[in-house]
Amino acid sequence: MDNPVLIEALRGALVESRHRGAVAVVDADGARVLALGDIERPIYPRSAVKALQALVLVEAGGVEHFGLRDEEVALVCASHGGEPDHVAGVARILARAGFDQGSLMCGTHWPLHQPSALALARSGAAATALHNNCSGKHAGFLCAACAMRCEPATYVDARHPVQQAVKAVLEDLGRAAIPDKHVGVDGCSVPTFAMPLHRLALALARFATGQGLAPIRAAAARRLRAACAAYPWHVAGTGRFCTEVMTGLRERVFVKTGAEGVLCAALPEQGLGFALKIDDGATRAAEAAMAALLARYLPREHDGRAELERFARPVLRNWRRSAVGELRPAPALTEP
Amino acid sequence: MDNPVLIEALRGALVESRHRGAVAVVDADGARVLALGDIERPIYPRSAVKALQALVLVEAGGVEHFGLRDEEVALVCASHGGEPDHVAGVARILARAGFDQGSLMCGTHWPLHQPSALALARSGAAATALHNNCSGKHAGFLCAACAMRCEPATYVDARHPVQQAVKAVLEDLGRAAIPDKHVGVDGCSVPTFAMPLHRLALALARFATGQGLAPIRAAAARRLRAACAAYPWHVAGTGRFCTEVMTGLRERVFVKTGAEGVLCAALPEQGLGFALKIDDGATRAAEAAMAALLARYLPREHDGRAELERFARPVLRNWRRSAVGELRPAPALTEP
Repeated sequence: MDNPVLIEALRGALVESRHRGAVAVVDADGARVLALGDIERPIYPRSAVKALQALVLVEAGGVEHFGLRDEEVALVCASHGGEPDHVAGVARILARAGFDQGSLMCGTHWPLHQPSALALARSGAAATALHNNCSGKHAGFLCAACAMRCEPATYVDARHPVQQAVKAVLEDLGRAAIPDKHVGVDGCSVPTFAMPLHRLALALARFATGQGLAPIRAAAARRLRAACAAYPWHVAGTGRFCTEVMTGLRERVFVKTGAEGVLCAALPEQGLGFALKIDDGATRAAEAAMAALLARYLPREHDGRAELERFARPVLRNWRRSAVGELRPAPALTEP
Repeated sequence: MDNPVLIEALRGALVESRHRGAVAVVDADGARVLALGDIERPIYPRSAVKALQALVLVEAGGVEHFGLRDEEVALVCASHGGEPDHVAGVARILARAGFDQGSLMCGTHWPLHQPSALALARSGAAATALHNNCSGKHAGFLCAACAMRCEPATYVDARHPVQQAVKAVLEDLGRAAIPDKHVGVDGCSVPTFAMPLHRLALALARFATGQGLAPIRAAAARRLRAACAAYPWHVAGTGRFCTEVMTGLRERVFVKTGAEGVLCAALPEQGLGFALKIDDGATRAAEAAMAALLARYLPREHDGRAELERFARPVLRNWRRSAVGELRPAPALTEP
């Protein structure tokens, strides 16, 4: 099945590039509200489920045990830009559990936030594992391992109790078993468990509503959503899609990006979960498509809609900041 | 017409992402050797035709007039990484024509080559227009304007004699008129003239062979190809696709990347021109697809083939350098 074109990139009068993909919007009972393209094919959710992975930490009592503050909880759910306060926050999480950056298995890269990378270089310092966009999640896994009283050193292994607990959470929220052959290794070395897009959207709808979840899981989800809504800068960073959208809409939305064009979101008040995957992995298309979708399902009177429109049709500029084109969402995304 | 999948990205046992696109391989008479997907749709060639744009400079006598050396000629054809010797070379070109970086209209960005960007920041300096990957081309346009005895300041305007000469070159090499509505603005502010992919491939085949060209144009093309073959590092930079492929195969190949998933190439000895465009604009897919194509049409005994195989099936690694997947070219690219 060929997935439809979701986003076109225009330059001058011509469509220069096009992005195909699949979209699932479901309610917390799993009823399909919108399905575009192949939503049965298993896709790796990558970082788009970091808040769901964090349920393991919260349910194990790790937040209380280590006295994590809400902004630190948001960092555990983050793909952060490596800005100084992100890095300091992750260092604090590690310190509370008696770890340091040497325990992180995510690998090292320079901050995604370019001004922070340049400032780091200017200071004479070098990148560390703390600057890896996944360092908060990894700090959370280490805390989870301790809270679960299991050996922390091998926490990235797919057979480690923390990762097995993550798998069980995804299976519970998505109401479907994940076969062993659908496990890949993420860029930060932890397992990523592939799920059909409609199962992923269901997981987000249940995460957002708590509907049908065990009370401890529903409470943990509520806590994670509240932390992200209160500290959206900690979930991504300056100017980033997830941060801007959650800053504008706060607890009325949850949104989280993943690598290779995956985006997950939820509108708790509408009881809806969203999952989309751009075939080619392009972040620009995933963001524009999700912005268009959220604008479609949000009530017309909500503040924060203007922000979504800006992300749904971003202007493409050259290096001198002149407009040279734009992204355009397909009618299938925007029209009821 | 739906373009076929050209490149699949695997992670673990699953195909995680896929890139569609179109491919044209033609000889210097325009005979189609390979056509995949829609090769009639006009596409913006972007930086993939920088060496063809440079014909205007060479034909106007600008290389002799300003005493440009071969490595500087290669920089005029470059999308360079902003490494120190790239920047110094562009500054030299400008100085020879009495300009400085203030005359460049390409805009400023930090070096694409990350170690060079970080080193620049570490030195306390900031990025300038010289670091823009297109600065060599822009320096060449300024020199061309002077050699053509026209006012240089507005050289990025589509109506400027230099840009009109570029259009005429592309129309001549591709043997087709370019309608006004098929002109877009590139990321570096110069016009980009859209052409059907098979016309672009024809332009490359004629550029590579000189077949049917006016003697001055054929000689200029030969000079540009020789400069790029002799100084492939100047055309892109450390570790980059164009540099590595031309370093391995020297004058037996010409290859040049462009933004939004365009790649052009030629095999002069085989008399073939190549043009491909990845629908979604992904560079990783364009490089893998072109590597597979070049390996297919190069004689089996050539050195430098191993390098192409490496680019055709690159291993995807996580931040700890473990293999987590690979890119895989479609059989349509690799099988005769």
